[in-house]
Amino acid sequence: MLVRCPFAIILQDKTNIPRIKHIAPEIEHSNLLRRYKAAVDSRLRAVSGAREPKAVYEPFRYALLSGGKRLRAVIVLLACEAAGGKWKSALDAAAAIEMLHNFTLVHDDIMDDSVLRRGKPTVHAKWDVTTAVLSGDEMIARAYGVLLRTSTSRSNEIARVFTNAFVEVCEGQGFDIEFERRPGVTVDDYLMMIGKKTAFLFSAAAEIGALIGNATARRTSALRSYGAHLGIAFQLQDDLLDVDGTREEFGKTIGGDIEQGKKTFLLLSALERLKGAELKEMKTILHRNGTPKISVERAREIYSRAGIFDSARKEILRNTHHARKALASLPATPARAALGWLADRLADRNS
Amino acid sequence: MLVRCPFAIILQDKTNIPRIKHIAPEIEHSNLLRRYKAAVDSRLRAVSGAREPKAVYEPFRYALLSGGKRLRAVIVLLACEAAGGKWKSALDAAAAIEMLHNFTLVHDDIMDDSVLRRGKPTVHAKWDVTTAVLSGDEMIARAYGVLLRTSTSRSNEIARVFTNAFVEVCEGQGFDIEFERRPGVTVDDYLMMIGKKTAFLFSAAAEIGALIGNATARRTSALRSYGAHLGIAFQLQDDLLDVDGTREEFGKTIGGDIEQGKKTFLLLSALERLKGAELKEMKTILHRNGTPKISVERAREIYSRAGIFDSARKEILRNTHHARKALASLPATPARAALGWLADRLADRNS
Repeated sequence: MLVRCPFAIILQDKTNIPRIKHIAPEIEHSNLLRRYKAAVDSRLRAVSGAREPKAVYEPFRYALLSGGKRLRAVIVLLACEAAGGKWKSALDAAAAIEMLHNFTLVHDDIMDDSVLRRGKPTVHAKWDVTTAVLSGDEMIARAYGVLLRTSTSRSNEIARVFTNAFVEVCEGQGFDIEFERRPGVTVDDYLMMIGKKTAFLFSAAAEIGALIGNATARRTSALRSYGAHLGIAFQLQDDLLDVDGTREEFGKTIGGDIEQGKKTFLLLSALERLKGAELKEMKTILHRNGTPKISVERAREIYSRAGIFDSARKEILRNTHHARKALASLPATPARAALGWLADRLADRNS
Repeated sequence: MLVRCPFAIILQDKTNIPRIKHIAPEIEHSNLLRRYKAAVDSRLRAVSGAREPKAVYEPFRYALLSGGKRLRAVIVLLACEAAGGKWKSALDAAAAIEMLHNFTLVHDDIMDDSVLRRGKPTVHAKWDVTTAVLSGDEMIARAYGVLLRTSTSRSNEIARVFTNAFVEVCEGQGFDIEFERRPGVTVDDYLMMIGKKTAFLFSAAAEIGALIGNATARRTSALRSYGAHLGIAFQLQDDLLDVDGTREEFGKTIGGDIEQGKKTFLLLSALERLKGAELKEMKTILHRNGTPKISVERAREIYSRAGIFDSARKEILRNTHHARKALASLPATPARAALGWLADRLADRNS
């Protein structure tokens, strides 16, 4: 059902340029992103350097330096450049955004009692809850410290955008928890929740990059919109990947959302659309531990027949389209091209 | 052993002015503090107003609006005024400092598994760990939001001081946890730890007030020093109060530190000073659950005979003296007088 070709969307462009022509920019964008990611990793290592107490900084380093795509940080850098700034001037802010993201992972893993993250034990599983609470707290504290080092005349605006994202991410997590307990959650509720929990951080990443690049209000708003749409597409793709049997796994369980009874876009759409026996079957996903659930294969079959995958795919493409469209008001630069390429790639990623 | 008269230090001044003359300023300072506390409470209520999700904001309000002396917030306001500013302009920052403080309480209570705070169940006891982690996170996020509303040309400096306090408080908590597990902790280690865990926030409160009052570097430094010394005195007085059998209790257990085997200034001083049988007796305080400990009465007796109470008292008075001395470089204003009075009162408080 899902299109698996990594450059499918590029190929679906109306340009009709043969594929061979796409390889050069593809490599170019990849290289740019790899270089930016390496710079972010290096800044994060510097930030996590020798500090005491060990009880805080060992788990801090473990969580922060154990991989990850550094996607949000790279978006800060690209947005800064797309806005006319120098990407290196945004490195501290990029590290800070990544630290905010990793802070949420450490604390969310406590709340969800997840024991694996990126294929390794989570902080509270490897140490304990105390260590995970405290090293998460220190991570967000140090994130502000790193953010405030940014040399810019717009530091107050930047701190506000960062803080707003922090507030929204926590509220999003609160809604996520509430929704797990509450009946009658709708697809719209879900989209609101992921807007806070996931998309806001992408939008803040792009906006902060724009501010460091000293963008006009119009360009700042365009980049903010790019991030917000990208974030929604990213999360919906995550929902899809959960039931995608073809994907390579690393630390995640296929069908984990179904196992845990998570109210994803897929499930909520199915519950709104289905009737009769199939509705009843899908509702078993909501069962709490101990009662038998529908199999992942069967859920996939129902999703497929009811057009749920198509809906999700459509919503992903719609958001990706809006993200790309938002970029149109920026001058044509390699950074803008890379942001557009990234949107396409994320919408079709398989990990 | 402990002096119990609430205005003892004022009476011990070298002025030799009869006590009756002190009643007027006493009432004046009290009224000022009460008024500022009420303004802080009102701002905190406004900040905690109707927001969703409930899963976050119910415990948020519960923790933030369940009493407390609002001491750190009042210091922000008084420091602002003492620096020549208008105290009302510091209300948002005062609320933010109080929120940072309450965030640490919510998370520390998880880590220490404390079930009572200000005589009421703690957040994780009343709800659960998830709720306490998340509402604490939201509290520090919103604290930044409130702080950044402050209208000042020095907002970047203020955000840095606030962040530095946040970083230090977390590191202090980390050392506290490490020290509980580690043998050979000294009184100096302890003083370093409470410098981070407690005093830094007082010092940041005074410094942020000074910055909002647009103080010179010299006055800012004086107020920072006032806060740091006050904070140390405050924590040492807390240690004393734990074994003070005469005090009225509200939500705390007399001898709780002894029960929990906490390495306080008293215990660490005793362990450094005692020998033979008494040293052996005091070491039983370090026993983990299940093994018999020395009684609170017996510990008190040993502390008293070994001069530990006197040492603590001396250290409190020394820090209070330094706090007062730091104020001398500021112009003589009612706010400065109130800060001095507050230092004396805290050094001799019984709750």
